[in-house]
Amino acid sequence: VVTDQQRRTRADGERTRQAILHEAVGQATIDGLEGLTIGNLAKSLGMSKSGLYAHFGSKEELQLATVEEASRIFEAAVVRPALAVPAGRARVLAVCDAFFDYLLRRTFPGGCFFAAATLEMGTHPGPVRARVAEFQLGFEELIRHSVTEAVELGELPAGEDPKELAFELGGIILASNVTFVLSDDTAGLDLARRVVRRRLGMGPPNA
Amino acid sequence: VVTDQQRRTRADGERTRQAILHEAVGQATIDGLEGLTIGNLAKSLGMSKSGLYAHFGSKEELQLATVEEASRIFEAAVVRPALAVPAGRARVLAVCDAFFDYLLRRTFPGGCFFAAATLEMGTHPGPVRARVAEFQLGFEELIRHSVTEAVELGELPAGEDPKELAFELGGIILASNVTFVLSDDTAGLDLARRVVRRRLGMGPPNA
Repeated sequence: VVTDQQRRTRADGERTRQAILHEAVGQATIDGLEGLTIGNLAKSLGMSKSGLYAHFGSKEELQLATVEEASRIFEAAVVRPALAVPAGRARVLAVCDAFFDYLLRRTFPGGCFFAAATLEMGTHPGPVRARVAEFQLGFEELIRHSVTEAVELGELPAGEDPKELAFELGGIILASNVTFVLSDDTAGLDLARRVVRRRLGMGPPNA
Repeated sequence: VVTDQQRRTRADGERTRQAILHEAVGQATIDGLEGLTIGNLAKSLGMSKSGLYAHFGSKEELQLATVEEASRIFEAAVVRPALAVPAGRARVLAVCDAFFDYLLRRTFPGGCFFAAATLEMGTHPGPVRARVAEFQLGFEELIRHSVTEAVELGELPAGEDPKELAFELGGIILASNVTFVLSDDTAGLDLARRVVRRRLGMGPPNA
């Protein structure tokens, strides 16, 4: 049996945890997952370090929870809108456009959380790197699968190799992120949208 | 007038500076340019912090010198071999291939130094970010210029937009880096070589 008091305490705990993760994701996009420390986080939240340790027992646990929170945000911003579009060439385009929109909305302060985390954690083997890699490979698989469907539906040429096309689209996505991070303007995103449409044999984006 | 003794002292100083920069570039590819500290560097070189400060007066100076050293390495590994190939489609291909070779040789421990540094420094305005951005934009300009030359020489279709094609090739280069960092195998580089050749209307790479 759970009392009202226990329920309230749990809900408070959940809210605090969410507030910590919100701050952690923001800090990690600026200083990296390795730059994230319980000390800095406690300071910017006005909490004690021991209060933070009650939620995350170690830096690694905090990093893993931060990656999960970032995945949740990415899924909601990019994956779900793309999957809402019917399978076929339109969905391939929707995956790319959803990514460009996610940059445009400045969902994270430093461009794509995972593009940065992948390169940062590449040289730091362990569970955090493994989780980041799993996420990155999952997104690449989503692109490849949507291309495969579009080829099977006859909406992309039968000779199109889904692995190669997905690699190219993934590259355009990475290039759009680098350009956006460097220039902080939208011209690179417009260029990326034109390139994707031409590559998929579709007309230019609506003005 | 410079005495032999002064010449030897300068040469010693230059050697020490080179040894520091060699170590700094390696550490920066693992822990990032912000993770680079005079304290850590002094420890791993067995030098005193004051000895290091004699060469680099501040962390920022050390970071800037590290970026210069990384640029020098990248120029020698990627830019110079590509420019040794005659202008035209062959040079466009050479830029990409030189980049894949530079990854394959594991020139830096964490993939491309500049791909990582660009995303890391994106959220840290200042002279280091400016220098990294300048380098990255310079490399993009090299790709674009080589494409423009190839179009002008009639070795790529006249309708090809150099800005768009260069963006795509830059993307393939970024994707090859992410794949290499994540998987540490060469299959992604082979895929990247095939994609570039097909995009340039050339035959598959030699077996």
